[in-house]
Amino acid sequence: MFSSALFRWTLVFLRRHQTLGLNKIRYRELATASDSFKETHTNVCSHFTTEVSMKKLLVDVDCGVDDAQALMMALAVPDVQILGITCVHGNTSLENVCKNVLRVLKVCKHLEIPVYRGATKALLEQTVSAGDFHGKDGLGDAPDPQAPGLELVQKEGAVSAMIRIVDENPGEVSLVATAPLTNVALAVKLDPSFPKKLKGLYIMGGNTDSRGNTTVCGEYNFAADPEAAYIVLNEFICPIYIATWEFTCHSKLPWEFCDGWLAQDTDKARFMKQIFKHSMKSSQSERIEKELVAGQGFISCDSYAMAAVIDDKYIVETEHRAVTVELAGNHCRGMMVVDHLDLLKKTHKVYILKKVDLERFKDLMMNALK
Amino acid sequence: MFSSALFRWTLVFLRRHQTLGLNKIRYRELATASDSFKETHTNVCSHFTTEVSMKKLLVDVDCGVDDAQALMMALAVPDVQILGITCVHGNTSLENVCKNVLRVLKVCKHLEIPVYRGATKALLEQTVSAGDFHGKDGLGDAPDPQAPGLELVQKEGAVSAMIRIVDENPGEVSLVATAPLTNVALAVKLDPSFPKKLKGLYIMGGNTDSRGNTTVCGEYNFAADPEAAYIVLNEFICPIYIATWEFTCHSKLPWEFCDGWLAQDTDKARFMKQIFKHSMKSSQSERIEKELVAGQGFISCDSYAMAAVIDDKYIVETEHRAVTVELAGNHCRGMMVVDHLDLLKKTHKVYILKKVDLERFKDLMMNALK
Amino acid sequence: MFSSALFRWTLVFLRRHQTLGLNKIRYRELATASDSFKETHTNVCSHFTTEVSMKKLLVDVDCGVDDAQALMMALAVPDVQILGITCVHGNTSLENVCKNVLRVLKVCKHLEIPVYRGATKALLEQTVSAGDFHGKDGLGDAPDPQAPGLELVQKEGAVSAMIRIVDENPGEVSLVATAPLTNVALAVKLDPSFPKKLKGLYIMGGNTDSRGNTTVCGEYNFAADPEAAYIVLNEFICPIYIATWEFTCHSKLPWEFCDGWLAQDTDKARFMKQIFKHSMKSSQSERIEKELVAGQGFISCDSYAMAAVIDDKYIVETEHRAVTVELAGNHCRGMMVVDHLDLLKKTHKVYILKKVDLERFKDLMMNALK
Amino acid sequence: MFSSALFRWTLVFLRRHQTLGLNKIRYRELATASDSFKETHTNVCSHFTTEVSMKKLLVDVDCGVDDAQALMMALAVPDVQILGITCVHGNTSLENVCKNVLRVLKVCKHLEIPVYRGATKALLEQTVSAGDFHGKDGLGDAPDPQAPGLELVQKEGAVSAMIRIVDENPGEVSLVATAPLTNVALAVKLDPSFPKKLKGLYIMGGNTDSRGNTTVCGEYNFAADPEAAYIVLNEFICPIYIATWEFTCHSKLPWEFCDGWLAQDTDKARFMKQIFKHSMKSSQSERIEKELVAGQGFISCDSYAMAAVIDDKYIVETEHRAVTVELAGNHCRGMMVVDHLDLLKKTHKVYILKKVDLERFKDLMMNALK
Repeated sequence: MFSSALFRWTLVFLRRHQTLGLNKIRYRELATASDSFKETHTNVCSHFTTEVSMKKLLVDVDCGVDDAQALMMALAVPDVQILGITCVHGNTSLENVCKNVLRVLKVCKHLEIPVYRGATKALLEQTVSAGDFHGKDGLGDAPDPQAPGLELVQKEGAVSAMIRIVDENPGEVSLVATAPLTNVALAVKLDPSFPKKLKGLYIMGGNTDSRGNTTVCGEYNFAADPEAAYIVLNEFICPIYIATWEFTCHSKLPWEFCDGWLAQDTDKARFMKQIFKHSMKSSQSERIEKELVAGQGFISCDSYAMAAVIDDKYIVETEHRAVTVELAGNHCRGMMVVDHLDLLKKTHKVYILKKVDLERFKDLMMNALK
Repeated sequence: MFSSALFRWTLVFLRRHQTLGLNKIRYRELATASDSFKETHTNVCSHFTTEVSMKKLLVDVDCGVDDAQALMMALAVPDVQILGITCVHGNTSLENVCKNVLRVLKVCKHLEIPVYRGATKALLEQTVSAGDFHGKDGLGDAPDPQAPGLELVQKEGAVSAMIRIVDENPGEVSLVATAPLTNVALAVKLDPSFPKKLKGLYIMGGNTDSRGNTTVCGEYNFAADPEAAYIVLNEFICPIYIATWEFTCHSKLPWEFCDGWLAQDTDKARFMKQIFKHSMKSSQSERIEKELVAGQGFISCDSYAMAAVIDDKYIVETEHRAVTVELAGNHCRGMMVVDHLDLLKKTHKVYILKKVDLERFKDLMMNALK
Repeated sequence: MFSSALFRWTLVFLRRHQTLGLNKIRYRELATASDSFKETHTNVCSHFTTEVSMKKLLVDVDCGVDDAQALMMALAVPDVQILGITCVHGNTSLENVCKNVLRVLKVCKHLEIPVYRGATKALLEQTVSAGDFHGKDGLGDAPDPQAPGLELVQKEGAVSAMIRIVDENPGEVSLVATAPLTNVALAVKLDPSFPKKLKGLYIMGGNTDSRGNTTVCGEYNFAADPEAAYIVLNEFICPIYIATWEFTCHSKLPWEFCDGWLAQDTDKARFMKQIFKHSMKSSQSERIEKELVAGQGFISCDSYAMAAVIDDKYIVETEHRAVTVELAGNHCRGMMVVDHLDLLKKTHKVYILKKVDLERFKDLMMNALK
Repeated sequence: MFSSALFRWTLVFLRRHQTLGLNKIRYRELATASDSFKETHTNVCSHFTTEVSMKKLLVDVDCGVDDAQALMMALAVPDVQILGITCVHGNTSLENVCKNVLRVLKVCKHLEIPVYRGATKALLEQTVSAGDFHGKDGLGDAPDPQAPGLELVQKEGAVSAMIRIVDENPGEVSLVATAPLTNVALAVKLDPSFPKKLKGLYIMGGNTDSRGNTTVCGEYNFAADPEAAYIVLNEFICPIYIATWEFTCHSKLPWEFCDGWLAQDTDKARFMKQIFKHSMKSSQSERIEKELVAGQGFISCDSYAMAAVIDDKYIVETEHRAVTVELAGNHCRGMMVVDHLDLLKKTHKVYILKKVDLERFKDLMMNALK
């Protein structure tokens, strides 16, 4: 709809002026500054008379296909402002992650969002391979000759940028982490006050029922850097929401939805179709079938964490538990440990997603490729 | 019913003659030997014309209340022959375990079944307390002044007896283990050929979803001797059936069933009511509520494993998986590890109980106190 | 010398009558029983007027070349009575170990000593290879066509025999263990009273300075079954003497001694020369040079532990410490841990050999091949 | 001596101008700039005709008494330029560490050297207490009312400063780390190129013979942050020199030396006497006697690492080995692992100090308090 498009345009405008330090603004004031806007669309402007709070996000990604899907979901939502995207090793090499993020920003016409280089390896460098579920380059091995160059990546490092940006927006930034938590852990090690300045932390990672998708009992993002996950779960005293591997499996969408999703007549949908082909094929492999909990389907893992920060009505049920990560162990290293018995005596508990409104989730997904 | 009582008497007779090496016998021949029997109950005897296979059992227990329930279930079934009961540390001290088994045998009028003393501690002696869910003495702290004395316990040790009995009945004995697996592990260490001479191994223990009831992620029987559980799961190449903690929780019965069960007008029911009082109260504690998966109810853990060996139609669904036990780890030591991804490359897999016929289970339970 | 030979003959006689329960006996009484003996050799008999205490030994071996050397040392000493030799996996397969022990007994003319079959694998079966330092067959791959057959091995198992023999000689038997401690650990698990009935336990194994000869920080005998070593160090409350890897390295003999030792004109020396060739060559490999602490030389590891039980004046200095075994760890699993700081709060401490009388050791070594 | 004093004055001058980017400078040129200097002291100036290379140091400390001793050793040497002192948790709290460093700088009249705040906790925050060997405040609990205030500590964080300073002096800076390695590990995680820009890394920490002084097998600096030590030993590809716990024990000085050292008539000696009293008393405790390897004596642990960077002729013998740190384990977590067998297949090896010139060391020590 027109008004919706206009609204989004306005917010893009807002976003591009993020350096002005605009945050909670009266939209009417902004509208007033633009005559044609004000005169033609008074019906829209009525929305603007109330104070609107932009959702400020930092996103930490190892940009495989599902990170791309999560990013596109956020980029498509008008009241979400991504202050920076920090890259980290994971689905593919750090360089590929940076390239992939830039490709996503280009197709979404948001190359103005700063991209930062983070850790190339886990804290202890005992790398666990992500396999090539998303292709060797993380985006389905469907290269784009016109892809933006790495010169667009910021000089400032990811960890430094995370700390600075959160310092500049105390209490306002939600951090969405859909990758091994190396960058996030380093942020708190460098600045112990980092977590308390965050509004919230949204993680895709870990597992609740010892169902590994990488090691016997370990989910990839946690198993890829168990010490980082341990540090984050121990030291981030802000509200933490976790979309675990089992949760995403239980929240899978039918492949039919995916077909309709990709069939949209937009550049974004065409881009997604291209980069997603590889993963869709991988999904039918014997190995992936073993990984999946509760049967086949379309699982955009990282998008479940992103949706939680975007849409306040999306989460229906959570479990509030102390959690940690097993660091030793022959089979359980990297496994998220849920303390049902309150044996760990931890005072800070996290919100483990148990049930979400899948209709709202589908809407956010559809919107991502519009 | 009369005929049933007679049938049971006959089997008791058979059982008491186990030393004669009788196993698969023609019941008619036996009946022929007893004139009064033959003449009066020809209708019963017609059942005896077919060959009946006695189910030969060894039961390894740390006789708490649920071990008692499982034993009473087996003792009440005519075609089950318990060749020996081996005792092991666990719910309470080894001495108490022996005493408790004798009390159960007395109330069931089966003091002829030999009872053996086994391990007093875990292989590594890093004892995990069972708490006093079942009372300090394991049977609800409801002592019986007329309880049989420990002089009834056999001189032969449990491990030696297990090996000998299975040697005398190759391929015919099912071992039901409802306790820490110390004795069972020692049996294979002493006689590597022990497992292949077993008909099957039925275990109550372990967990599938990292839901601990003792340590953060560990079920009691496995956590109480992780090395023993590891050895058993690695070296027992006979068919293994496991009733895990989560399975028993998901198969709980309503407390109403328990009420009816205990209300039976029998000595056994009165005995059970007495020894079960303590555990029933414990079940309502905050701690136990945290342990329970999927809500409150009546869970006779060990009975689920026993039912599997008694009634061939009881198991409805199993999962066939390679499993092992985490031995290291800060939180996961003692946790059963299910290898969904086939990463362990184990050729021998176990049957994890997923669904059982609860009506048949209820029948077996009711029958136990008849 | 004649008198010496006679003395030894008498002791062989005594040994063969071990089943009579003879232990501390007045040798004069025995001599009296034999007329020709008494009349001809009164000069010898004068020795017999004092009470002589036979040293009763159980020896647990994984008979490689140094186990053979240790056994031959003991077999050559008149007042040592070997009540049994228990075999266990280690330097080579259990079958080879049994064969090797029989070959040693044959060359020493002591095939009357009973040999028992023990554990084929470590408690947890996570086998660490011994390499082929002693040859694939453990005795230098120099087979003997006339070697005794395995039918000479006792039917009774090693662990059962250990328990029985010690039961029959309470407080009198010293156990010398020069192999992975699987059998020894199983003995205490089967009979918790086993250790307190022993006179002493003499172990070759473990290390004091984290100098591994098998894993980075682990000595072979301990690393080959860390749980067994852990159990033994925790549960054997008899006096324990340990000849560690570093100790044996620091107590090495010059190769010149070895030359003279092997050059003796005896069947035993010729046998030793044959079976030792392979290990002597191995000793010069680059790998072995890395293993050795404090330079090259002739190290008959197991003999250092054996000498301690044979000769009361051999030990010059020990360290009295609580020790245990690291069971977890990426590099330290199987390492002996010496508790210099008394942090483990263990009441039972062991004697770690620090300095021995090498001249007495050389005498025992020379005597072994006489 | 006069000329020496002048020489030192000149170097202090040089140091204070470090920000000018002066490094390898021709001293004659400098002298030329100062007329009175040139004319009066031509004999001194003759030394200046050769190119002199200042030794540029970063020092990372948890300033207890021995850190203070090491710092004072470096501050007293003319051709050593300390570019910054980074503080980290350890012997005492981070705040105390900062205060202690400032007190040392004040007594040495070098408050111009920038001091930076680093990590308050280990990477995983599983804190191991340092006990109060050096007193609760780390400097013998002998507070100075005139101590400089914490406002003198730099705003820039330690890790950031380390990276920046080394960036500004590529290939020229030696890092001396006499504390838990948290800061040092974070530097490489933030800037993977950090190690290769260093000239060398000098560590006091770790052990070679599993002789713990904190945990059963762990030396304090490594045990206090095992992951940090692991990261540093794995990722620092510059030359690494390690003064281990056992090495410092074997290199102890007689207490008589200490007496003479403290008896010097200088402010520095008086300061040292005051702050060292507590540790000297601690040294005679039963616990410390257990910790010490090879008997009693005066051990200024951190000074051994500092001397190595100051005096090129000090190191007499090193062992060149691959090393790592045990991260798991019940007793060995934090223990340095020396790979004598080359099993770790690491290409980068460290220099473990084995023997140093103790006369030179004594000279450096004496000079520290002059």
